Amino acid sequence: MTRLLYALSGADRTRQFSPHVWKTVMSLAHKGLAYETVPVGFTEIPAIEGGSTATVPLLRDGDRLVRDSFDIALYLDEAYPDRPSLFGGEGGRAMARFIENWSQSTLHMAVTRIAILDIHNLLEPADQAYFRRSREERLGASLEDIAAAGKAEVEGFAKKLQPLRNMLKVQPFIGGEGPLFPDYIVFGALQWLRTTAGTKVLEEGDPVAGWFARCLDLHGGVGHRVTAA
Amino acid sequence: MTRLLYALSGADRTRQFSPHVWKTVMSLAHKGLAYETVPVGFTEIPAIEGGSTATVPLLRDGDRLVRDSFDIALYLDEAYPDRPSLFGGEGGRAMARFIENWSQSTLHMAVTRIAILDIHNLLEPADQAYFRRSREERLGASLEDIAAAGKAEVEGFAKKLQPLRNMLKVQPFIGGEGPLFPDYIVFGALQWLRTTAGTKVLEEGDPVAGWFARCLDLHGGVGHRVTAA
Repeated sequence: MTRLLYALSGADRTRQFSPHVWKTVMSLAHKGLAYETVPVGFTEIPAIEGGSTATVPLLRDGDRLVRDSFDIALYLDEAYPDRPSLFGGEGGRAMARFIENWSQSTLHMAVTRIAILDIHNLLEPADQAYFRRSREERLGASLEDIAAAGKAEVEGFAKKLQPLRNMLKVQPFIGGEGPLFPDYIVFGALQWLRTTAGTKVLEEGDPVAGWFARCLDLHGGVGHRVTAA
Repeated sequence: MTRLLYALSGADRTRQFSPHVWKTVMSLAHKGLAYETVPVGFTEIPAIEGGSTATVPLLRDGDRLVRDSFDIALYLDEAYPDRPSLFGGEGGRAMARFIENWSQSTLHMAVTRIAILDIHNLLEPADQAYFRRSREERLGASLEDIAAAGKAEVEGFAKKLQPLRNMLKVQPFIGGEGPLFPDYIVFGALQWLRTTAGTKVLEEGDPVAGWFARCLDLHGGVGHRVTAA
């Protein structure tokens, strides 16, 4: 096996929770490519593959090393053109960039605020210290204060997904009749919340909840590998 | 000339302002297709083409009649496959639906609130009466009260465009190196504001302002045909 996916993990090495790693897990499953997962804690990342990355996912594919979930998806489509495409053409490759930035700017800070203490608590002690220091510095508040502010995010969360909810009136996936990489982008954000805080942010019967359930079931149910927190 | 675009107009018949019609104007220009514009006021729409539509744009292309800006774009790509594509493939056709719903649910109500009295004021008297009655009923408030609430929307408007602003760090158009239909979707919303209220919602130097200026200049500057209000 020469295909390795370096994936962020907590003290429980099977508990994958990084939204970006989930995008790549789904991408590899979409392409039907086998690989071995290498779980790493935050503080282990700088030592991976001779210091070749500051973030995960990192994919080793034979002698290729590819960082960043979007770049990995582009690489997989280029390297394995005979397997199902992740973008459905050039227009899809470009438009997925908009959806990536929508997900990042609309959903990620809200999930961070909601789940920050849960993320902290599932890490190894050394990673907990790193996580607290780096996040408190980046966000300018204690994890506890951020989490307190996160309570207000829960109520407004479903509303942020209105563009997806409306789109689901015309098609079952962002990719159309079937999923493409932008589905995995948005799935990654919600899977991150599911596997860390486990907070219920969608009502039963919400079309977005239906779409998320469909994503969890994709590719042999790979999204179910980690239970809800 | 058998290609006709029925386009919403005000008392000044050259003053096109409908966001949806602008999407089609840009689509036709993108495909390099000649056509004649048929300006219609709100209350004239039910009589067009023997009552075949409740909304514009409506495109007559020979013996084909196509409604709805998205359906028109799909039609144009299908009918004129040798001219530049509006979607760049199947993935783009699907993802553009997400961007359509993002634009509609994020930008359109804000533009409505900001520009509603300006839109009213540029219409023919008969259309003004229809517009006031239908919008006041739909929104549950007088045009004047909606416009008063619109003042608060101006300040928050630029922030709604953050996904586009961030995306512009990696590529100049939503379509990638060049524009595709989703650029025209978002352009339509901002062009609607430009041609009705003319409210400045973007700072100089905002990458979104740069993108909008690039869109105005496309296809021989067709977006400049109507001056800013």
